[in-house]
Amino acid sequence: MADLPIAAVVRIAKKSGAERVGSDAAAAILEKTEEYIAKLTKESNKLAMHAGRKTIKEEDVELAVKSV
Amino acid sequence: MADLPIAAVVRIAKKSGAERVGSDAAAAILEKTEEYIAKLTKESNKLAMHAGRKTIKEEDVELAVKSV
Repeated sequence: MADLPIAAVVRIAKKSGAERVGSDAAAAILEKTEEYIAKLTKESNKLAMHAGRKTIKEEDVELAVKSV
Repeated sequence: MADLPIAAVVRIAKKSGAERVGSDAAAAILEKTEEYIAKLTKESNKLAMHAGRKTIKEEDVELAVKSV
């Protein structure tokens, strides 16, 4: 079950220049997006722990984004 | 203005093992996620057009995800 609303994902896709997005494609974009959040979070969490913190900060995300 | 709901993004982050996510970090994850959707969509759209279609299909997304 997806956590993100598909309508919001399609809205961003259309803003990015997609003329038409098939429903199978919308579901695929949603799935890949949730995978991306998971990867970005795991890497950010690793960096937070490396810095001796349990709370993820913006600086962790900024560093993590370069390696995911 | 973000299109994705921040609560849903944080929920996925927690599911992925983040113990605590600072509000600045949550905003950063949201921003990076919207950028990811934009990149993935642009690449998918390019591939759809390359295949002579105006509608993005799942196969475009699956191929696009490898290069973003």
